[in-house]
Amino acid sequence: MKAVILLSGGLDSSTVLYQAKAHGFECYALSFDYQQRHRQELEAASAIARSAGVAQHQVVSFDLRLWGGSALTDTNIELPCDRSLAEMAQNIPVTYVPARNTIFLSFALAYAEAINAERVYIGVNALDYSGYPDCRPDYIQAMQEVFRLGTKQGREGNAIAILTPLINLKKTEIIQLGNSLGVPWSKTWSCYAGEELACGVCDSCRLRLAAFEELGLKDPLPYSKLK
Amino acid sequence: MKAVILLSGGLDSSTVLYQAKAHGFECYALSFDYQQRHRQELEAASAIARSAGVAQHQVVSFDLRLWGGSALTDTNIELPCDRSLAEMAQNIPVTYVPARNTIFLSFALAYAEAINAERVYIGVNALDYSGYPDCRPDYIQAMQEVFRLGTKQGREGNAIAILTPLINLKKTEIIQLGNSLGVPWSKTWSCYAGEELACGVCDSCRLRLAAFEELGLKDPLPYSKLK
Repeated sequence: MKAVILLSGGLDSSTVLYQAKAHGFECYALSFDYQQRHRQELEAASAIARSAGVAQHQVVSFDLRLWGGSALTDTNIELPCDRSLAEMAQNIPVTYVPARNTIFLSFALAYAEAINAERVYIGVNALDYSGYPDCRPDYIQAMQEVFRLGTKQGREGNAIAILTPLINLKKTEIIQLGNSLGVPWSKTWSCYAGEELACGVCDSCRLRLAAFEELGLKDPLPYSKLK
Repeated sequence: MKAVILLSGGLDSSTVLYQAKAHGFECYALSFDYQQRHRQELEAASAIARSAGVAQHQVVSFDLRLWGGSALTDTNIELPCDRSLAEMAQNIPVTYVPARNTIFLSFALAYAEAINAERVYIGVNALDYSGYPDCRPDYIQAMQEVFRLGTKQGREGNAIAILTPLINLKKTEIIQLGNSLGVPWSKTWSCYAGEELACGVCDSCRLRLAAFEELGLKDPLPYSKLK
């Protein structure tokens, strides 16, 4: 049985890949070079894919700087730094990329249909990023309908299933799950800043570090702006 | 008011662009270079976009040969030729590209969200290609739910609307509509074969030629394999 796993190379998607593997699937990892500011996450994705022993790792390239609309695809928009978790939770942040999960899931559907996979795994999480419209269960349910109606298999009653094993987990619970699955955190990448070392102060670093700290664990990654 | 129009450069999408313009929208055309066999359709798309006087024409590039699965993205799969309209209607043809409309609509959603457009136009047609799962009304309805739930505007009650003005039209009716709107057919491109001239015998040429003939009109394009 084959599964396509959306793999950015961060904590969440890496945990999902190891989860899919533990579920017994032959894993086909799918990453995207969309000219994101933090393209080094792709190296992390490759390293994690190798560690997990995937059957194939595809990287689709396109340029979302064409219309920007996000601090991750338009370097004229400043990256928020040093925000508290409470500040992050208030609004959809400028790091939101319009329709990104819809684009990612669409390519995953195409890949899954072409290789005859049964499942697509995505590491969305509705708790820690409650502002994102495309991480919530009702959105995933709508994409599931698209998977059912937009493919031959789906029309015949064999829709490719979207699995979201992290959707109701807190970041700390994701780390605990990843630990139980043996995810090599040192190979993952979460930072948005696009510098050689993870910054430690962007929203993504903050969320990650806060979760490790809450668990009394040390994040193995080096950070440039931490005291 | 802004609208994003998916524009391949064929009869259908060109007619849809002129329809959106006639509806009074500022038009933002969106095309895709997915390494399709018939990439010259992109030149047609540019010519049509210029003729219609669009505000912007974006071309997103990515490579669907990565996993193939279609005669349009895998040159090892032979292109069907000389089939009758009845033969074409029987099954999903090998020119079907897995999840293509889902990918196209996802990028259209991203573009529309980034430029704050109200509508996305797509020239799908449920009659002449009844085998395609992703051209039917229930599929479009499922994508509309994704548009509503996957964006901030949608969550706030201002979902970007998907318009499918051709969904219930026959090819002949599309040509009649295009004629009434002044679509310059000589600038459009439908052929799948990827040669210098349109072939006249692939499914796409056959459908087009049969419709012009049924109307007693002459298709202004030159064809290489017609007597």
